Amino acid sequence: MTVHEYALVGDQVLANVEITSQDGVITGVRAGAAGPVTKGLTMPAMANCHSHAFHRALRGHTQTERGTFWTWRDQMYARAAELTPDSYFALAKDVYAEMVATGIGAVGEFHYLHHQADGTPYDDPNEMGKALLAAADEAGIRIRLLDTCYLAAGIGREPEGVQRRFSDGDADRWAERVAAFDDPRVGVAIHSVRAVPRDQLATVAKAAQGRPLHVHLSEQVAENEQCLRAYDLTPTQLLEEAGALGPMTSVVHATHLTGTDIRLLGESATRVCFCPTTERDLADGIGPARRLHDAGAVLTLGSDSHAVIDLFEEMRAVEMHERLASQERGHWSAAELLDAATVHGHASLGFEDAGRIAVGQRADLVTVDLDTWRTRGTGAAPETLVFAATGADVKGRA
Amino acid sequence: MTVHEYALVGDQVLANVEITSQDGVITGVRAGAAGPVTKGLTMPAMANCHSHAFHRALRGHTQTERGTFWTWRDQMYARAAELTPDSYFALAKDVYAEMVATGIGAVGEFHYLHHQADGTPYDDPNEMGKALLAAADEAGIRIRLLDTCYLAAGIGREPEGVQRRFSDGDADRWAERVAAFDDPRVGVAIHSVRAVPRDQLATVAKAAQGRPLHVHLSEQVAENEQCLRAYDLTPTQLLEEAGALGPMTSVVHATHLTGTDIRLLGESATRVCFCPTTERDLADGIGPARRLHDAGAVLTLGSDSHAVIDLFEEMRAVEMHERLASQERGHWSAAELLDAATVHGHASLGFEDAGRIAVGQRADLVTVDLDTWRTRGTGAAPETLVFAATGADVKGRA
Repeated sequence: MTVHEYALVGDQVLANVEITSQDGVITGVRAGAAGPVTKGLTMPAMANCHSHAFHRALRGHTQTERGTFWTWRDQMYARAAELTPDSYFALAKDVYAEMVATGIGAVGEFHYLHHQADGTPYDDPNEMGKALLAAADEAGIRIRLLDTCYLAAGIGREPEGVQRRFSDGDADRWAERVAAFDDPRVGVAIHSVRAVPRDQLATVAKAAQGRPLHVHLSEQVAENEQCLRAYDLTPTQLLEEAGALGPMTSVVHATHLTGTDIRLLGESATRVCFCPTTERDLADGIGPARRLHDAGAVLTLGSDSHAVIDLFEEMRAVEMHERLASQERGHWSAAELLDAATVHGHASLGFEDAGRIAVGQRADLVTVDLDTWRTRGTGAAPETLVFAATGADVKGRA
Repeated sequence: MTVHEYALVGDQVLANVEITSQDGVITGVRAGAAGPVTKGLTMPAMANCHSHAFHRALRGHTQTERGTFWTWRDQMYARAAELTPDSYFALAKDVYAEMVATGIGAVGEFHYLHHQADGTPYDDPNEMGKALLAAADEAGIRIRLLDTCYLAAGIGREPEGVQRRFSDGDADRWAERVAAFDDPRVGVAIHSVRAVPRDQLATVAKAAQGRPLHVHLSEQVAENEQCLRAYDLTPTQLLEEAGALGPMTSVVHATHLTGTDIRLLGESATRVCFCPTTERDLADGIGPARRLHDAGAVLTLGSDSHAVIDLFEEMRAVEMHERLASQERGHWSAAELLDAATVHGHASLGFEDAGRIAVGQRADLVTVDLDTWRTRGTGAAPETLVFAATGADVKGRA
């Protein structure tokens, strides 16, 4: 039995909260309890819904001589070319450990490094994916492995160079490989409408079979322009045509949208995964997070390229970027951003049993130290978690 | 004698750097030295050029029920109303200690809480300023106390409510009080062109007498509109008319400028103090940092409202905000941003003897741990300091 000095229960912070659990599942939550107290503000572990684990190796290295988008992409591809199942296991294990240490309990790994460098499958064609699952086990993080269909360098262009590692040839062969990947933690992904031809999008969407389906959407203006030129439809319209929108779908970035796109995503209750620290690092721009929310779409968060791994910073950056764009404060409440980082995030990974401190939910909890340089004096409140805390303020987790 | 594993010398990171000092002044810098090594990457302590110490009390408290600019301002004024010399000493001591702990060696305190709540001077009319100097001594931070002239609630409007604490009545009486403040650490400030009437700006500028002169400039569009309506000049043009621009002047924010403003600031080699974490928190917008630099103005940095105290974050936010605004990467090099946080920042506070690891400079050094979750694997390079490190990665300072 542990009594938490403070705990986030729903959108309220309560004091002296006893949380009991059995076999990792919460069996009781009671405020005003007596007993030895764990200091700090306890909250549900967060969900990092968009991860490319290997990008972590680029942190700090892509800015030399100023660094354009292309400096970044060249270096990213160079890293992608050299990874093996063993080296990717070792790298991902450390990245996931960094997530755990900073308060993250689940990760959505958007995985497309499937094959050997020349495109030949490994003896076990899912060996790379299994290395990532093993890395997650080792680090103690829950994972949804979003096995990604990646077939083209761009609309109408064959894979080039390292992209041959990513491609299964066509969506049917991708689906066969995924069908043989016998692990309940596997979900699916469409890399983007650039990388999967229009006539094969529905194959991937169907293969999801109720599992989470993730897809990069309209991160760059160029993607929209190419898509409109090729199909006379926006990327969002293309996904809608393929039956790929809906509550089990997460569109990642959703930066450059039309009013129609926003309506389609909202009406279908699609989840939108914003990755603001990456979106600023890659100069993507500021997406219409609040308009999407108001239309009915559901916000989740990811650290994506891992220029930063800090879901607290992702939460507040959603609000801060809207402030910069609009010159107005007050777009999101702390409670809404906490929902994005917890309950909605876990649900978007297919984990409906996580993200709240409530009976029946997983007892995966994080305690934020309220006596650090950053948090001292800010109060035991949801606003402290969103507007003051950082990953460095999470107390050691078992 | 200490050998630093790595040290930032000029814009290069060198290995095994022996730095000798006497009476707090560096007497020798030698790379490739032998001896017991201090692990990490050592750099000059940074300069936080714009601080309102009491705003730290608002961190985490201004976002309730979403929180508009006015929520923030009401709370800020409520705090300003209740402070006494004793309570401000205690608060500021902790704020400055947070700065020291996160790698900051000098602060520019923009101070206008001069008088008692009803506007009556204290028995010693500089008692509040002296409390701030004592707080800096206690925390072990170097301070430039920017004694601020604040006379009006807006153009043509008398001070209201708590603003009576700020006002000396007119610029001559402000200058008399400052002349009686016999401490070499005192500099001066014009609060803004809203708070000092046009015909009194030159009085403050003259009173600087070669000391640093700081001024809030064009943080909000409304300030520009009011100024143009009243005077048919922009705030920058008004400062130029008053002889208030030049290398010993720092204009703070400089968010909403005309092309002429940028030219005037550049040609006069005025320093521009950006406070990006505050500018996003207050929804000010994104100022033209790079255009100012290219025109000849000199960038410095401040944490201002202390929503965040982390000069590493301020450095990278300058670049990140330009990326968000332009959808292009690569506006600033790491070396340029480090100069803003160190040598240019110290100089803007009148401290020409600090901000570089070089013979004759102050031996005020900060070591960044290269083995934290955030910095691991990023390399011993200037880019690590700007694009990966945080205040939490600074190793304990004596």
